[in-house]
Amino acid sequence: MEMMVELGALSYPIYIERGILNKVECHIKEKFNGKKIFIISDDRVYALYGECIESQLNGSYDCGSYIIPHGEQSKNFQMLSGIYSALLKAGITRSDLIIALGGGVVGDLAGFVAATYLRGIPFIQIPTSLLAQVDSSIGGKVAVDLPEGKNLVGAFYQPKMVLIDPNVLETLPKRYLKDGMGEVIKYGCIKDKELFELLEQSGSYENLKEHMTTVIYRCVNIKRDIVEKDQFDKGERMLLNFGHTLAHAIEQYCHYTRESHGEAVAEGMYQITRISEKKGFTKEGTAEAIGRILKMYGLPLKADIPMENLVSAITRDKKNFKNTLNLILLKEISESEIYPADIQYFDEVEMV
Amino acid sequence: MEMMVELGALSYPIYIERGILNKVECHIKEKFNGKKIFIISDDRVYALYGECIESQLNGSYDCGSYIIPHGEQSKNFQMLSGIYSALLKAGITRSDLIIALGGGVVGDLAGFVAATYLRGIPFIQIPTSLLAQVDSSIGGKVAVDLPEGKNLVGAFYQPKMVLIDPNVLETLPKRYLKDGMGEVIKYGCIKDKELFELLEQSGSYENLKEHMTTVIYRCVNIKRDIVEKDQFDKGERMLLNFGHTLAHAIEQYCHYTRESHGEAVAEGMYQITRISEKKGFTKEGTAEAIGRILKMYGLPLKADIPMENLVSAITRDKKNFKNTLNLILLKEISESEIYPADIQYFDEVEMV
Repeated sequence: MEMMVELGALSYPIYIERGILNKVECHIKEKFNGKKIFIISDDRVYALYGECIESQLNGSYDCGSYIIPHGEQSKNFQMLSGIYSALLKAGITRSDLIIALGGGVVGDLAGFVAATYLRGIPFIQIPTSLLAQVDSSIGGKVAVDLPEGKNLVGAFYQPKMVLIDPNVLETLPKRYLKDGMGEVIKYGCIKDKELFELLEQSGSYENLKEHMTTVIYRCVNIKRDIVEKDQFDKGERMLLNFGHTLAHAIEQYCHYTRESHGEAVAEGMYQITRISEKKGFTKEGTAEAIGRILKMYGLPLKADIPMENLVSAITRDKKNFKNTLNLILLKEISESEIYPADIQYFDEVEMV
Repeated sequence: MEMMVELGALSYPIYIERGILNKVECHIKEKFNGKKIFIISDDRVYALYGECIESQLNGSYDCGSYIIPHGEQSKNFQMLSGIYSALLKAGITRSDLIIALGGGVVGDLAGFVAATYLRGIPFIQIPTSLLAQVDSSIGGKVAVDLPEGKNLVGAFYQPKMVLIDPNVLETLPKRYLKDGMGEVIKYGCIKDKELFELLEQSGSYENLKEHMTTVIYRCVNIKRDIVEKDQFDKGERMLLNFGHTLAHAIEQYCHYTRESHGEAVAEGMYQITRISEKKGFTKEGTAEAIGRILKMYGLPLKADIPMENLVSAITRDKKNFKNTLNLILLKEISESEIYPADIQYFDEVEMV
């Protein structure tokens, strides 16, 4: 399956296909006629897929690589210096290409490197986690973390191409699958009733597996549409933050050690919907429907954290500095809205 | 005087006016309705103009500042962490504003911070050196240095406004004036015969002083036109590199300790024109005319470095990684061309 993200001069294709990792060279040749390719990956992903990709590219290109340790702690500002140095040592110029091969950490970090090295060089995304395939590899949000928080330094910088191979999910640890499923369910909640129903009918990841190409396609297609309308995250793109206000607060409160991002988003989606249902904004039964699906895919509904503890984390979030919150609420499944509120919205909530 | 840089959604005004530093608040109010302003400046400039600006803004805005030591060594990648932390501590959000108050170092560094903090926040340029007023503050090239070289990490990120006060040149040390005059003469050489003649007729900076608003306007207007046609430096914008291939090599060879940038550009312009005149490309007498003007403004013509020593510096330059050089040559004064060549172009040149 194939689609174009239409952003004028910055437009790019996304290919979703089982086994596409074996055709990387063909696709790169469509778009790139330079000489050097530099792969940024992490130790786990590179061990699995590095050779497959390098062996395809070595015939036509001069390949280099930089392998970071896996995990969020690699996505920090200090990591950049070493990568810039490696690019310089490899003689990478503006007419060469970076490949981000990995999950969200690699994509965000390599994307930021591509955005800033020599004021920007082309890069392509080959996302290998479900989360990266349905979310972070599309739309050009790249970033690194500071000691003070996540994604505080970054850019909007679009890749030249995204290659998504659903087969790589076979090697993904189960917890990472759940992590991605949190975001998949989110797309159903905010925009896609059919997807929501497919997830419900399948009832488990095992049963959903055979539909994964379609599932990824539907998610990516929603993200594509939203990014085209709002590249710089000033309007509709905020809908993608459904569940994320509470999720970020939960993650921060637990210092990112307990829930994965997808798990925190699951809790956030269920809880914010429960709250907005109580307030009469959301159609009754919606939280229950979301909770049912989350359970099917092994995702949690509750963080068991007193709301007052989350409130201070919310007010520290970079999106909420001004005490105005743009909450994303559902009218019902697949109908989402940006709901401007303030922190008092959570006043009568006890636990989340 | 006023002009617009027309770049679609990224368009912005440039104001050039004696005493405009006393009207900063008025101009900012036109474009900015946020609450917080964060000034990035250096110790020298801030001592001279910081209070003037902050006292205007303090009534309407919550002002913070970060002052770096003056000089190129502040424009390094490691300097960024401290600035990001200060911005976070001051609670600066995407709807706040950064002011870059200073010369090229401050503009490049603060611009890069603005481009990357929270994936980009608005900033305005108040350039206080002649070089920054006629060149680096316009066009959105922002960058920091790496240990391996200058401007190796950066972005194209346009300011929201540029405020240029020719009066501040009164406090500029003489060497910095010469530095800027190198670039001013460059604009005459590549695009503006009338400017070239005005520089010649004036005969010295003392005499030119009364025309500085016009001089700056003409330079900025050329840069504006070129940037509008070629925002990302892939074509015509390269004309601005007249003299710069040799200049960068000279600066690198001398480890940036001998010539200022403008002095190196002066040497580069004269020498490349001397060489291309010998090769029959440039109209006879052009190098002499350039040399005459450079001398009037106290700028050097010769680096006295054997060409073979510069050749290795040229091949290390990030623009020339591929051994193809895009030399900028003059047909005659005000007629410049991009001339694709290779390093052998300098084969029979002995000294520069």
